Order: sequence, then structure tokens, then C-alpha cells
Amino acid sequence: MRAVVMHGVRDVRVEDRPRPVIVEDTDAILKLAATCVCGSDLWPYRGADPITDPVPMGHEYCGVVVEVGSAVTIIKPGDFVIGSFFASDNTCEICLAGYHSSCIHRQPGAASGGQAEYLRVPLADGTLVATPGQPDAGLIPSLLAASDVLGTGWFAAKAAEAGPGKAVAVVGDGAVGLLGVLAAKQLGAERIIAMSRHEDRQKLALVFGATDIVTERGDAGVARIKELTGGLGAHSTIEAVGTQEAMMQAIGATRPGGHVGFVGVLHDVAIPGEQFFFSHVHLHGGPAPVRNYLPDLIGRIWRREINPGLVFDLHVPIDDAAEAYRAMDERRAIKALLQL
Amino acid sequence: MRAVVMHGVRDVRVEDRPRPVIVEDTDAILKLAATCVCGSDLWPYRGADPITDPVPMGHEYCGVVVEVGSAVTIIKPGDFVIGSFFASDNTCEICLAGYHSSCIHRQPGAASGGQAEYLRVPLADGTLVATPGQPDAGLIPSLLAASDVLGTGWFAAKAAEAGPGKAVAVVGDGAVGLLGVLAAKQLGAERIIAMSRHEDRQKLALVFGATDIVTERGDAGVARIKELTGGLGAHSTIEAVGTQEAMMQAIGATRPGGHVGFVGVLHDVAIPGEQFFFSHVHLHGGPAPVRNYLPDLIGRIWRREINPGLVFDLHVPIDDAAEAYRAMDERRAIKALLQL
Repeated sequence: MRAVVMHGVRDVRVEDRPRPVIVEDTDAILKLAATCVCGSDLWPYRGADPITDPVPMGHEYCGVVVEVGSAVTIIKPGDFVIGSFFASDNTCEICLAGYHSSCIHRQPGAASGGQAEYLRVPLADGTLVATPGQPDAGLIPSLLAASDVLGTGWFAAKAAEAGPGKAVAVVGDGAVGLLGVLAAKQLGAERIIAMSRHEDRQKLALVFGATDIVTERGDAGVARIKELTGGLGAHSTIEAVGTQEAMMQAIGATRPGGHVGFVGVLHDVAIPGEQFFFSHVHLHGGPAPVRNYLPDLIGRIWRREINPGLVFDLHVPIDDAAEAYRAMDERRAIKALLQL
Repeated sequence: MRAVVMHGVRDVRVEDRPRPVIVEDTDAILKLAATCVCGSDLWPYRGADPITDPVPMGHEYCGVVVEVGSAVTIIKPGDFVIGSFFASDNTCEICLAGYHSSCIHRQPGAASGGQAEYLRVPLADGTLVATPGQPDAGLIPSLLAASDVLGTGWFAAKAAEAGPGKAVAVVGDGAVGLLGVLAAKQLGAERIIAMSRHEDRQKLALVFGATDIVTERGDAGVARIKELTGGLGAHSTIEAVGTQEAMMQAIGATRPGGHVGFVGVLHDVAIPGEQFFFSHVHLHGGPAPVRNYLPDLIGRIWRREINPGLVFDLHVPIDDAAEAYRAMDERRAIKALLQL
């Protein structure tokens, strides 16, 4: 099968690799409908995470089940399914509390190698959610978005307690931040302030429900958010970057008693205790428990209430994966879908 | 009037000072019923916060109103009242959201000089809450505790979302931590694990509702909490110390999706981003909005449902304030009440 493999910095190749097979009796094998490049794939691409051996890439996926292990009872061959990058059992106390990405049996790198024609998914009954039927081609980008970026933006909005009557600020204009805007809108937020200085991303933020655009960053960005919220700051702030500057901007932009939901993986970030103490904000986030939201999100997509697939502003055949990585690296594309 | 003044490291004196007078037309003057020494008073006492000029001490108080400014309409002379160390208007959007200690008109050092016979309190109508009548002498310690340590422990328990069915861990066995135990019990927690290695504090924790005592600290303390909670960690953890070790212990002791409520003022603390990201805990705290809880807490004390005054294990006349400070500094007393 065709599969994307990273060999080193800015060296992405599409190669023939063996089709995956059932290893554990709780596995399923999927024939993928489409896959895509994640913002996090750019870290090794840019050399931030060193690569020694060639690495099969990808962790966002949806497609048809072609085979299941003997212990799989809920998911069936022929089902169209979506899963998350974390395999989870969906039955432990932590999953039942909605934190599947901290499942006591979680397998973080479980669905790695998802930029390929076929994928093995562990803990299939816990990890995968089937759609009500076979989707139209037009729904595939949105269902694929649910696998990671939509679920992550949704968790961020929930963690930030976005809802009716709330002013929500969004730090970060990547796919996750933009889908945080969409989530805040769906959750009923009154005002949604997107922070972006890129015209194409500003436009998409407005399509997804943003009411205001702020182009300033850092202290100037915080000052502008306060100006827009009666001097108090946002009730809810989504942090979808993961840097020290973005985190401090998010905390600073939030009113006392407000909530910051963060989903950018925190790289070299340290939250200063005293400043955080006096900010009086709530802070919650981490690896998004996407599985928790999949049934709800699939329903919204199926009923065509949301169109998160719009974040894919570049569609290319999988054989052009190198160009997809380049376009995202150079910020020419928000997010690239790889056609299979 | 008699008043406690700190002149330098371990140099506390009781002196005659002029009675305070109305300065702003929103002020009230109280004749205090009792006052006390706070754990935070020990920082300058030990030299952690340098003192250049003599400082009148104290910020916990209750007593009878003897005079009010011309703009005070709710509070009346003769009322027995309790207030917090933060003056607040109780009408702004932040107060209405329950965050009086971040009130847009807050005056943080407003009630300073509270270890004295009389005290001026700004924003009297917003800051003070009257009891239903004149209290018996036996209620005074509990009403005084409501002014700071009870309200602070209560906020910590609320921030940690202590409640029915929850396992609550408490880091810190000072007056605030012990009253966090009391608050968790009142809020209906199923299990309350107090971390303490001092026998007298362990005993009081059990009186206040603790179900388990953990004497280990750091990683061993975290391991013990996990052992007591099915390997998962507490649902809710109260952090009532304010050091790096205590904060990391609190985060480590909490299960994914759980809540840490912190009220120890964070001194030289930096929360490591990556560890916090993967912990999946909620983090909330800061200066306690005690005013928000006073009506509820006064009711519980008045109906004799709670006896937070038990944290005062040393009662001395105000003229013996120096001994009160020494006893707390040497951990011979949990908290000292100064009789007037």
C-alpha cells in the first residue's frame, strides 16, 4: 500500500509498505477514505524532534472496517468509522468521566502510520465510532476533521466553558484554533474574538462564527481583548498554540473567575505561580479526549449543522504528500488533506 | 488603643496608637471582638518580606460597628459584622460572579492594622456582613475564623469541586488546610484524606471530618494517595501551602479530569507546562473571595453546624501578642487568637 514516511528534516517520501494485519484480538483494520497532515507533524519536519529511523507518519483517519479481531464485538466489517489518535477502552472510570486520552489502558501512538491506505487500530470497540451509514464524499473532509482538529478545538472550548452569554477569545489561528471558534459558536457563545493576522484565516474564522478579529499579539493583544470586553477580559479563552507567549496571552486576556482551555502541547512553558495566583483564572487542558465528543460531533456533521472540513484548504493525492507538508510548513495552507 | 506593631524580624510589640477615624464616606469603624495572627504574618516575622518602617499588623476581624460614613446605607452602628482582608464593592460584574477579591474597586490592604481594638474598614456596605444578632461569646472564635481561614479553606474546596461521591486530598495542615477538610465535609465529600505528620493537627483534621491521614510527603505522599484511590488519584485536591513541592504534590495526587484548588500564595513557584498538560487536571485558585461565602458561612456558624473556631488552639490577651507569634513560628500553636 502507499504510505507517507519521514526520513529526516524536510524529507517526506511516499513509499510502498506492507498492509497492516491484526496483531491483538481487539484490533481492527481500516481501509481509509482520506487522511491528512497535522500541525504537529511539522515539528519533526522542521527538526524540532530528531529522527533517526524512517517514521511512518499520520494519526488522523476515517474509513471502512475491513477486518476485526476475534474479541471485537461492537465494530463490524463494513462500518464507516472515525477514531482518535489515542486508543482507549471507553469503559474505565477515567473514560466514563470523559477523559479517554488518559484512559488507564490508553495507547498514545496507537493509530500511527495513518497517512496510508490501510491502518491498524487497537482497542477497536473503545476507540472507533461508526457513522449512521456510508457517508457521501462531501462529508469525508468533515468526518476526517472530527478525528483530531475538531475534537481538539471542541475540548478546548469545553475546557474554557464557552457557552451562552460568554465572550470567548481564541489564541491561535491554526486548524485547531479555527475549529475552537466553530465549537464556541455551536456551544452558544455570544461573542467570539479570533486573534489572527492572516487574511485567509480571518475569513474562515468569520465563516465559523467569529464576531471580532484582533490582529495584535502579546500585551497589545491582551489590551485589545480587554477593550472589547468592558475592561474585564474574556470569560473564556482558548489557547491553541502551546508557547509561553500564547499561554501568557491567554491568561492575561481572561477575566478573574474566567476559564482558559489549552490544547497546544506545552513546549518549554513554565506558568509563573504568582502571576497565575492573582489572575484568578481557571486553567484546564491537555491531550484532547476526542473520543468523548465523537458521537456528538458525528451527529452534527451528519445533519450538516457544521462544516469543519473547510479547514482543509489544500486537497492533494497522497503521492504529493511532500508538497502538502511544504505548503503547511510555509503557511500557504491551513491544513492539507491527502486523497486516497 | 492597643495595637500590634512589627518593628523588624521577630520583633513584635504592642503599643498605644490613635483610634482610626472615618476617612472616606463609605468607611465604617469597628470595635473589634477579637483578632488573631495569620500564617502569612510569619513571612515578615521570619524576614522573608523585609520591613523598613514599623507596620501595624492584622487583617482578620469581627466586631461591632461604632460609626459609619455618610454614604453607608446597609451597615448600621450596633451591627455585629465580619469582613474580609479585601475590601470590595459587592456590586461590580466580578463581585457578582463571586470573585470579590478581584473586585474592580478592590482594596487589598484595606483592613490592615486589624490586630488592634478598633479598625477602619473601607467600602463598608460591600465588605461587611452582619450577623443575625449579637453573638454569644462562644461563637466569636468561629466568626473570626470566617473572616479569613474558613473562607479561604472553603474557596479551596469549592475550587477543587469537592462534593458528594468525591475523594478529596488536602495538602497542608495549617489552619487553612484543616478548614479545607471541614469545607469538604460540609460540601458532602465521601472521603477526605488529610496530609499531616503532626499529631495535634491530625486529631483536628479527624474532628473536622477527615477519613484518612497520610503522613508521607512528595512522591511518597502522591503514591499513598493513589493507593487509597484505586490507583487513580483524588478527584479533588486542596493545595494550602504555596510552595513548588506542595503544588506538584497536589497536581500529582489528582486523577485526570480532577480538580486542584490552590490558596497558598505561590512563592517562587513555576508550573512545568508539559507535566501539567499531560496531568489533565483543572487548576484554579488565588486570593480567596471570602466575602462571597460569608452569608452562607455565618449561617452555618450561627446554627452551630460547624465549629471552625477550634483552629484557635491558643488564646492570649492582645498584650501577649509577641508570645502568640512565637508559638505559631515554633509550630507550638496552629493559630493564636488575641483577646481584646
